[in-house]
Amino acid sequence: MSLTEKPQSSPEREAYYEKIARQDYSALWNVLSGIITPTPKSECVPHLWEFAPARELLMEAGELITAKEAERRVLILENPGMRGQSRITTSLYAGLQLVLPGEVAPAHRHSQSALRFVMDGGGACTAVNGERTIMQEGDFVITPPWAWHDHGNESDRPMIWMDGLDIPMLSFFDASFAEGLGEDMQAITTPTGDALARYGANMLPVDFEKQGLASPLFNYPYARTREALETMRRRDEWDPCHGLKMRYVNPVDGGWAMPTIAPFVQLLPKGFKTAGYRSTDATVFSVIEGTGRTTIGDTTFHWKPKDIFVMPSWHKVVHEADEDAVLFSYSDRVAQQKLGIWREQRDAD
Amino acid sequence: MSLTEKPQSSPEREAYYEKIARQDYSALWNVLSGIITPTPKSECVPHLWEFAPARELLMEAGELITAKEAERRVLILENPGMRGQSRITTSLYAGLQLVLPGEVAPAHRHSQSALRFVMDGGGACTAVNGERTIMQEGDFVITPPWAWHDHGNESDRPMIWMDGLDIPMLSFFDASFAEGLGEDMQAITTPTGDALARYGANMLPVDFEKQGLASPLFNYPYARTREALETMRRRDEWDPCHGLKMRYVNPVDGGWAMPTIAPFVQLLPKGFKTAGYRSTDATVFSVIEGTGRTTIGDTTFHWKPKDIFVMPSWHKVVHEADEDAVLFSYSDRVAQQKLGIWREQRDAD
Amino acid sequence: MSLTEKPQSSPEREAYYEKIARQDYSALWNVLSGIITPTPKSECVPHLWEFAPARELLMEAGELITAKEAERRVLILENPGMRGQSRITTSLYAGLQLVLPGEVAPAHRHSQSALRFVMDGGGACTAVNGERTIMQEGDFVITPPWAWHDHGNESDRPMIWMDGLDIPMLSFFDASFAEGLGEDMQAITTPTGDALARYGANMLPVDFEKQGLASPLFNYPYARTREALETMRRRDEWDPCHGLKMRYVNPVDGGWAMPTIAPFVQLLPKGFKTAGYRSTDATVFSVIEGTGRTTIGDTTFHWKPKDIFVMPSWHKVVHEADEDAVLFSYSDRVAQQKLGIWREQRDAD
Amino acid sequence: MSLTEKPQSSPEREAYYEKIARQDYSALWNVLSGIITPTPKSECVPHLWEFAPARELLMEAGELITAKEAERRVLILENPGMRGQSRITTSLYAGLQLVLPGEVAPAHRHSQSALRFVMDGGGACTAVNGERTIMQEGDFVITPPWAWHDHGNESDRPMIWMDGLDIPMLSFFDASFAEGLGEDMQAITTPTGDALARYGANMLPVDFEKQGLASPLFNYPYARTREALETMRRRDEWDPCHGLKMRYVNPVDGGWAMPTIAPFVQLLPKGFKTAGYRSTDATVFSVIEGTGRTTIGDTTFHWKPKDIFVMPSWHKVVHEADEDAVLFSYSDRVAQQKLGIWREQRDAD
Repeated sequence: MSLTEKPQSSPEREAYYEKIARQDYSALWNVLSGIITPTPKSECVPHLWEFAPARELLMEAGELITAKEAERRVLILENPGMRGQSRITTSLYAGLQLVLPGEVAPAHRHSQSALRFVMDGGGACTAVNGERTIMQEGDFVITPPWAWHDHGNESDRPMIWMDGLDIPMLSFFDASFAEGLGEDMQAITTPTGDALARYGANMLPVDFEKQGLASPLFNYPYARTREALETMRRRDEWDPCHGLKMRYVNPVDGGWAMPTIAPFVQLLPKGFKTAGYRSTDATVFSVIEGTGRTTIGDTTFHWKPKDIFVMPSWHKVVHEADEDAVLFSYSDRVAQQKLGIWREQRDAD
Repeated sequence: MSLTEKPQSSPEREAYYEKIARQDYSALWNVLSGIITPTPKSECVPHLWEFAPARELLMEAGELITAKEAERRVLILENPGMRGQSRITTSLYAGLQLVLPGEVAPAHRHSQSALRFVMDGGGACTAVNGERTIMQEGDFVITPPWAWHDHGNESDRPMIWMDGLDIPMLSFFDASFAEGLGEDMQAITTPTGDALARYGANMLPVDFEKQGLASPLFNYPYARTREALETMRRRDEWDPCHGLKMRYVNPVDGGWAMPTIAPFVQLLPKGFKTAGYRSTDATVFSVIEGTGRTTIGDTTFHWKPKDIFVMPSWHKVVHEADEDAVLFSYSDRVAQQKLGIWREQRDAD
Repeated sequence: MSLTEKPQSSPEREAYYEKIARQDYSALWNVLSGIITPTPKSECVPHLWEFAPARELLMEAGELITAKEAERRVLILENPGMRGQSRITTSLYAGLQLVLPGEVAPAHRHSQSALRFVMDGGGACTAVNGERTIMQEGDFVITPPWAWHDHGNESDRPMIWMDGLDIPMLSFFDASFAEGLGEDMQAITTPTGDALARYGANMLPVDFEKQGLASPLFNYPYARTREALETMRRRDEWDPCHGLKMRYVNPVDGGWAMPTIAPFVQLLPKGFKTAGYRSTDATVFSVIEGTGRTTIGDTTFHWKPKDIFVMPSWHKVVHEADEDAVLFSYSDRVAQQKLGIWREQRDAD
Repeated sequence: MSLTEKPQSSPEREAYYEKIARQDYSALWNVLSGIITPTPKSECVPHLWEFAPARELLMEAGELITAKEAERRVLILENPGMRGQSRITTSLYAGLQLVLPGEVAPAHRHSQSALRFVMDGGGACTAVNGERTIMQEGDFVITPPWAWHDHGNESDRPMIWMDGLDIPMLSFFDASFAEGLGEDMQAITTPTGDALARYGANMLPVDFEKQGLASPLFNYPYARTREALETMRRRDEWDPCHGLKMRYVNPVDGGWAMPTIAPFVQLLPKGFKTAGYRSTDATVFSVIEGTGRTTIGDTTFHWKPKDIFVMPSWHKVVHEADEDAVLFSYSDRVAQQKLGIWREQRDAD
């Protein structure tokens, strides 16, 4: 079919192409098969970053530059297929951030949405819109678009977390806005824990009105998440492709916790091997507990706690857990579903 | 204005009224002021039922009839303005149910929605759609419309809870359906605690699809509710009319926990006196903690734990707490808001 | 099952019932089978009102009282099973209104929603929120809740329309509010036809924000409706139970045109006989075109243009058209669906 | 602030950057100011394409290649700031398509959404999901994602329309799917006009269930659009920034007519000059009627019927009409609003 073939060339045609180019036109029939492809063709490739060497590099950065000078001391995970573009998938960014004891990452805000997934350390703080939250390993923390946020570490240990942002998406849509507060830390107006109590206990203030698209709950503590997973597994119903996979929700509407980024957590019991699965949302995984391996297309990655790996769009994926494993992950599925373009395919069906 | 006055009578007019009546007509102008009133006119009156004498009557019923013979051993709280109609407000029903140790209230289902608010005792069970929940004082439990449900008491104490149902609403809309299971207890297919973990921890199964309008979370434990209220009060922001008032939500969509009944819980700190407030949703209150008084229109009710009182539509209400007080309440506000007919008026604004 | 049986009486039990009655309680087990019924039990009965005699009675009323003295000169269609209650179904009201040439029905507003379905005459006006619309036979006109509205007849013929309101529903929920403007006619601020162009042409103003739950489009002209039905019938797909049945929608959200009343129009081609159907929304039908008959439960009604008939909840209905027929109808289906209590049963499935 | 500045370099730092690069990391602090910008920085530039020369080039293409060989005979409008990328804005594609009398553009489908805006000629057909529509100048036609579609021209004149697609967006999200039918034309199963009658007359089939996110109405005829604009202008209320601007809606939910592309039509009366306006959705304009000029940033474009021009994100725009003018336009506003990233700024406020 002609959707996949390019018409033949000829001197007349080539002359025509040159002429129209001068008037800011090009011929669709010469590019059609490259821009409307039968299935997704991405420059994104599968890759795994091990945590131990990453931590070493981060600690080295800790001596090279302060959090304040850097604004954010972060190593970007660059997808090997798209070097120099600050992306881990075509639409998403991932980084590893280090905050040393006593440091502050100064207050700013931007139209980009951010998630923090805590990997190493415990006791550092993120402040969002006047409330601070203390972060522990496995916690999933949100900084909503255009919300003032700053980070500090009053603990006695270095703190490392993964940042997930929609930077490439905002660039693509030409919608980046940002500003600094001019202060290291914003004013704290709300007691710690208020958001979790107010929005996270299956109640809402009687006259609450939704504002913005991000969850007002900005820390989803791992202690609670893990306990819920452990209770649910008693039902002994496993999805062939996912094990026991949950999405973090915005308690205000039951939708995704973030407007552009879809965050997940999933439990794979010891010995479980998933059926093949592919979907259009390239996904970043971070291992919380357990060891195992994941085959993405033709490549198999062995993982252990705190490793990070990325699965491109429409690549078949199979997970296998050597021991009980918990994976955190994020993708742009929420964006794709809103736009009506998300697809999945399950070998199990 | 003529909306409030009836045209004068005359022999010709009276003859006409008789004639049209024979053809199943009547003249709007004779009844207009009675059916489209300037403000709500209800037969519902304010009233308070004390718990101690209620408990005595219930225990007496326990000797008079078994839960099984009665199907449900319940005393209906009849609004004194609408006796014989099995309603506490025009649209809602309230009852006090007793289940003695070892008893079972057999499995049935109906199109009516029901809530259980646990008043006295602890350890009895409700089973809903294959999962059992153990109920404790202050717990708010839902049996969604058309869900199989049965109750049992395997504890060693009598158990009393308040039932709140939309029976008058279903009668009004001619939409009552019911059937028995033919068994005392339904089969249990899901481990206890599954629903709370699966839907109540600010996550949802990744491919979860909403079914029906009621919350899949069917027990909102008071321990969690109370702890959240205690955390929130640290923010020290009190609504002049409500103190700290929360609505129980359906975690699937952030809407009301039930499709026809709006359930609330509110904290009034010691010494707090609310500003005058009225709304069109007649409300049933049940005191969980504390003592105080509530003035509804011209009547003041003094209340203490486990008392129940009812506030009719569009009556001004003022609460005053002598000590820290927690009130559970329910009304038809969710129905009125969906229909676009709910109104409120706050003295504080 | 005990859901349908009442426990036996005894002297002890009777004494108990008397005692609890004095404290505003009653025993659920004595009334359960009457308030939670296996299927709907309604006092509403099927009935048909012929137009010709109704028109005579209305013209007689025209000599007996002015539109202004009456506020609204309307004959209420009283369901024969619920006389004296100003209802045609348990939740809805129907009336026939007459406005004579030169008359005005003065401006007022109320929390009740109203629809006008034009039956006889043409050229009278209804003004809603500052815009007038000229009404013709078959037009479906809305006066949203709390919208100022008045009617006038500048044509040279008497004008008769059917009023459909949710008066019983607002009474049931204790939510009736009303006031007069103190003027015969409200000020006209918007050119006639604006609403139909602005909201009815499959476009909306770019920054339009939805206000209230009723359609901002308040006249759905029959000329347009009829033409659409004629085009659609070319597809030759008929629903076994409904023929070709459409619901009028609110163009702002695709939902029902009114918040509490569901309006429909349906085409039954000559010779078509519907399969049996029942649903919980008692429905008022008005014949626009054609003749035929409808069997409701055990009763068959023969109808012709401008007749009105009512079908109670959960009664099986079968329509048969002797010639191409068009029926307008309205029910409380929108309210029941929002509340999650609507059911239907189709013989055809 | 450091959001806009890059930390200083040093030999140690450079060595570090090289080391981390080898492990697929980069340092955020070196790129931060380029990827999270204070305001949008786009390669998209303003540009205008005149219709007359475009038509000449198209007719020349008509001799160079058939519609069938080309699959689609289209000249892509390439934004001068992003040559070789087949885009008119960062997220959208625009092309001019020619179908000669007797030609067919064969049936295929793809995950990309497409709009057709008819510029020149009349009487050609587009078939979508089994229904054909005849297209006239000014008509706005949709081919929803994954819907089979083909075009034919049975008129005696060449037909030219503008194609608007979300090709760059689907590429960005790695979600392109496409296939050919293997037939020139799909089977026609539905009479022409059915969709417009069924979904476009402010009614919906009583049991209609929404499928997909695109409007089931796939031709919005200009005759109807223009008449509605003419009626609305009688109200004489003009938006300072937009004149009278409407968005095409999906009648099923009142939302945007397409899931990823926002289509608009606006009337600017003779002599009207808009107040300055900017927004993050880069927009493609096509002139339907009238002449005038538009200033985008520092550039002024004079336009006449059938010209096309593009406005980049966050560039201030001012329109001025020399005579009554009607502009069609499209942007990705619907996508940005769903993602919560759309912004606008009005000089008039």
